[in-house]
Amino acid sequence: MSIIKPRTMPGTMELLPRQQVVHQRFLDTIRQGFERFGFQQIETPAIEMRDVLLTKSGGDTEKQVYFVQSTGSLAQGQDPKLALRFDLTVPLARYVAQHEHELAFPFRRYQIQRVYRGESAQRGRFREFYQCDIDVVGKDSLGLTADAEIPAVIAHVFTALGIGSFTIHVSNRKILRGLLAAHGIDSEEQRAAILREVDKLDKRGRGRVEETLRTGDFGLDDAALAVLMDTIALRGDRAATTEKLRELDVEDPTFREGLDELDAVLGALDDLGVDPERFCANLAIARGLDYYTGTVYETLLDDHPEVGSVCSGGRYEDLASFYTKSKLPGVGISIGLTRLFDQLSALGVLDENAHGSTRVLVTEMDASLAEHGRRCASMLRAAGINTELHTEGQKLAKQFKYATKAGIRYAVILGENEVENGTAMLKDLDAGSQQEVALDELAATIDAAD
Amino acid sequence: MSIIKPRTMPGTMELLPRQQVVHQRFLDTIRQGFERFGFQQIETPAIEMRDVLLTKSGGDTEKQVYFVQSTGSLAQGQDPKLALRFDLTVPLARYVAQHEHELAFPFRRYQIQRVYRGESAQRGRFREFYQCDIDVVGKDSLGLTADAEIPAVIAHVFTALGIGSFTIHVSNRKILRGLLAAHGIDSEEQRAAILREVDKLDKRGRGRVEETLRTGDFGLDDAALAVLMDTIALRGDRAATTEKLRELDVEDPTFREGLDELDAVLGALDDLGVDPERFCANLAIARGLDYYTGTVYETLLDDHPEVGSVCSGGRYEDLASFYTKSKLPGVGISIGLTRLFDQLSALGVLDENAHGSTRVLVTEMDASLAEHGRRCASMLRAAGINTELHTEGQKLAKQFKYATKAGIRYAVILGENEVENGTAMLKDLDAGSQQEVALDELAATIDAAD
Repeated sequence: MSIIKPRTMPGTMELLPRQQVVHQRFLDTIRQGFERFGFQQIETPAIEMRDVLLTKSGGDTEKQVYFVQSTGSLAQGQDPKLALRFDLTVPLARYVAQHEHELAFPFRRYQIQRVYRGESAQRGRFREFYQCDIDVVGKDSLGLTADAEIPAVIAHVFTALGIGSFTIHVSNRKILRGLLAAHGIDSEEQRAAILREVDKLDKRGRGRVEETLRTGDFGLDDAALAVLMDTIALRGDRAATTEKLRELDVEDPTFREGLDELDAVLGALDDLGVDPERFCANLAIARGLDYYTGTVYETLLDDHPEVGSVCSGGRYEDLASFYTKSKLPGVGISIGLTRLFDQLSALGVLDENAHGSTRVLVTEMDASLAEHGRRCASMLRAAGINTELHTEGQKLAKQFKYATKAGIRYAVILGENEVENGTAMLKDLDAGSQQEVALDELAATIDAAD
Repeated sequence: MSIIKPRTMPGTMELLPRQQVVHQRFLDTIRQGFERFGFQQIETPAIEMRDVLLTKSGGDTEKQVYFVQSTGSLAQGQDPKLALRFDLTVPLARYVAQHEHELAFPFRRYQIQRVYRGESAQRGRFREFYQCDIDVVGKDSLGLTADAEIPAVIAHVFTALGIGSFTIHVSNRKILRGLLAAHGIDSEEQRAAILREVDKLDKRGRGRVEETLRTGDFGLDDAALAVLMDTIALRGDRAATTEKLRELDVEDPTFREGLDELDAVLGALDDLGVDPERFCANLAIARGLDYYTGTVYETLLDDHPEVGSVCSGGRYEDLASFYTKSKLPGVGISIGLTRLFDQLSALGVLDENAHGSTRVLVTEMDASLAEHGRRCASMLRAAGINTELHTEGQKLAKQFKYATKAGIRYAVILGENEVENGTAMLKDLDAGSQQEVALDELAATIDAAD
């Protein structure tokens, strides 16, 4: 029989069991954090109806969609009527509109699922990846405290992940929009184009962005450009940044609204007990997407700024205008987990040799004693200890080697002497030590060990 | 703007948040059970290379595949090179072959992910559904104790799920194959055809199966048919069934091997402490798939036999012969979670009005006191209590109604009096009672409540 080379699609992350344990701890930590802050889980199908999924998107996103069709549909040469979700925002909009009358608003949902994008394959670009999203969606209106809850959750989650120091950068798009309006840039399109340039600040650097805005068709005069560049350089705590913004003395109402909102959100973050080291105002955070209308967030790893934002989001006016006439303002954020995990792994930050979920291997010393091993495993499991029973009559040394490779720290040996004595030999494979323990004390001994 | 009707693809299960909580408890319970028995998690991409995925399958399965292609590939009129997994067995085979030299054998893996099938849409048939699989895969050989570990895990998991009484039915395909060989049915093809008929016993009934086997082109004489029908009627505990099978006095070596294996597996289940009420030998369990070569399992809900098997599997000779020359015998089982959950929901067995993951709603009585609410929520969260902070200045009655709808049991009220007294009003929305509690005792009081 000819052998097919086993391989995955490029642009996917597939982990070995030891790495999977670390990944699962990330997922669990994120989930617990989301639930701690009162978010409720939903899951949506990966496959959506094409016309429903692609209502909202256009341009680049549509180019990256994966279309789906069944064998029958393909054989008939039909155009695919199904597609895989490319984010969790469109499915959320569809979900809220579809189940609107059964949901309680404000609807605080979290969703941790994989999404699919037909990206070109290159390091750090994934075609299948986990997103971990939270959103608070109001009906008709949504209080500003929600904008502070979002970074409060993220500060909690990233602290719990234990992946080093990070900072959540907060701004409000109304500030720059109002600033530009005050300098005579009235066209929303023009303002959006300028904000998209500002969003490139990290990648292109201040000089090149300034140059583009000066020479391009952006309509900025020298005075406006100077104020804009000074403003987006503002970064710091609530008092320092809001004070400098007030000193600009801009009277545009959008500017003032944005400033008041930013001030309120940063103040609420204090009330919510968020460590002031974990967030700052940063007026350069513009988020390229026109979708966001107020508060915006990006999260940077302080020791690895080159990774870029690992968790971004913001406030939007209306979630689901394509699916319902109800007005659904919201605020949300998304952790791109697969990319984050991949980057942390490449940086060597993850403990990928951590012990797995299995704590004990009950070895098989002799086939004639196998029933004692089975009873011992059953006893340990009943005591709540994750226990593997070795089913192969191999040499003990080989079984220990197996345990070490599988990330199992303890081995239990039941030889003739132990069976006679009503004991077991408990071996700590990390320490290389062993002790004889009475069978009825075995579970407690393992429980009490490191 | 025209509105697109928000809808999901038929054949998917999408839950409301209250149901999602119950579903998540199922997932967590299954995962904990798998880990308790020393299985290690893996996850594989939903999209696989088409030529890799469809190596092994043929016939009906191929007809149910969902093919995937990117916008670019579609525009160029290419044939799809990607497809969605239709089970977790082919991805396991691909995974083990691909990572063979990095894995420890026997490899005990669990995998809880969604799979995709282009089924015709009808109640109870899903196009996207969760499978929860465990397998023990050996290299070159795999001890028979592994065949007993599988139902031991399942007994633990189904007990922990708390969905009523169930029985795991165990047989060994070698017994019927040997029995037929002893009656002169030498062709493996013919024997497989007969076993596929036996597999229909539950659906078609004994009479019709017997009739088919008598009149069809199955090559069974009356004596063989009589023994076969008597044998497949055998059901009961280890002693009763193995004794009757021995009394048949069949000398075929495959029959004897199957009988010894069944005997050993049932005996090992006793050692493993599995409640004898939760499993039985049932010689009618044949599993239609020729893939299985020894031990086979089906799991029935005792009070709802009409649901059919909710968890099936068995022993196979070689997992990944399409991808590697290594011989990889294994044994595994799969819970079809989505169908199970859907059936239990339809039967009214699930507590879909259970409280959600959020325990407390900190209400907002007055915007001027909002900072106290934020501090209180922060305090409760720091104490490990899942807490939602209401961000809308609505009437209290409306906030209580919201909490009830969202499945939140407790509400905290901070009015002027409470703020002055350093207390909070704690309202139990289920009981309709409330008590004033000192702020620094609030977390402990909620913790200690039901």
